[in-house]
Amino acid sequence: MLRSAIKHCRECGSGVVYRVPDDGDTRQRAVCPSCHTIHYENPLNVVGTVPYWGDKVLLCKRNIEPRFGKWTLPAGFMELNETTAEGAARETVEEAGAQFEMQGLFTMLSVARVGQVHLFFRARLTSDQFDPGTETIEARLFAEDEIPWDELAFRTTKETLDRYFADRRTGVFSVHTIDIA
Amino acid sequence: MLRSAIKHCRECGSGVVYRVPDDGDTRQRAVCPSCHTIHYENPLNVVGTVPYWGDKVLLCKRNIEPRFGKWTLPAGFMELNETTAEGAARETVEEAGAQFEMQGLFTMLSVARVGQVHLFFRARLTSDQFDPGTETIEARLFAEDEIPWDELAFRTTKETLDRYFADRRTGVFSVHTIDIA
Repeated sequence: MLRSAIKHCRECGSGVVYRVPDDGDTRQRAVCPSCHTIHYENPLNVVGTVPYWGDKVLLCKRNIEPRFGKWTLPAGFMELNETTAEGAARETVEEAGAQFEMQGLFTMLSVARVGQVHLFFRARLTSDQFDPGTETIEARLFAEDEIPWDELAFRTTKETLDRYFADRRTGVFSVHTIDIA
Repeated sequence: MLRSAIKHCRECGSGVVYRVPDDGDTRQRAVCPSCHTIHYENPLNVVGTVPYWGDKVLLCKRNIEPRFGKWTLPAGFMELNETTAEGAARETVEEAGAQFEMQGLFTMLSVARVGQVHLFFRARLTSDQFDPGTETIEARLFAEDEIPWDELAFRTTKETLDRYFADRRTGVFSVHTIDIA
């Protein structure tokens, strides 16, 4: 979901101009010169899980761009009309066909450069059989020393796995707030 | 920031139709019949703080709609190119003119009905003098028994304050994930 500049007004279809609105705002927005609609652009949430089975974690090999063929924790864009946990569970079903019990929030990662916030919950797998959807080539369990660290799709996956295995060693899982430059 | 249906394509200005795209998607999206752009609509993040000074918490009396004249924790829509904590700090400066030190994430509230996620951080005030911006009539410190519970602007403020004073009694602040129906 790449962001391109808004060219036309969603209300009336006229060409927009980027400028600071006259309402006290301090940022440039796409403003419609015809109907005066101001178009706000805001960060997107990506929601997912760390699904675990004993000492192993479930990763999915991506069957889609970006990062085709690389490994990721199940995650995707949060939709309207769902909670963060519901979205994370939905993505885990869609991408891995996994069966699990949702647990607490684990990482919140801000990726300011691309305007995203990633939210990962721990999820206790209740089966080690998976039925991945069309977005996934393969869903597989990895112990810490089997993780394909050089073949991970995203920094958010790597940072979350780092924290997961570190907390697992202490036996105490906390919530981690992480900024990705 | 009310959501209305998208009427025109942001790329070419043609009228859009709401339908399930042909790419395997399962949800209705605003699709452009001319240039085939698919317009995704996703939840918005509201970021803010629980600014505290001793046993008191800072609330702002709203000078804007919605909920003009009601009391709220400082919070607003997260912008592109900032982290969740940076956005929360920015809103606290804009709405209260407060001086503070940012602390950890405290509540994450999903408000699925309106497609929002609210994220509140604790913030230790370093001064009890405030300089509220134009969006705020008054910024004032309240002890727990002074909180205007019936004059709070939002459920997310009430739920966050409930958790804050409860955790304060135990002396241990955890991260709370809350769903607002």
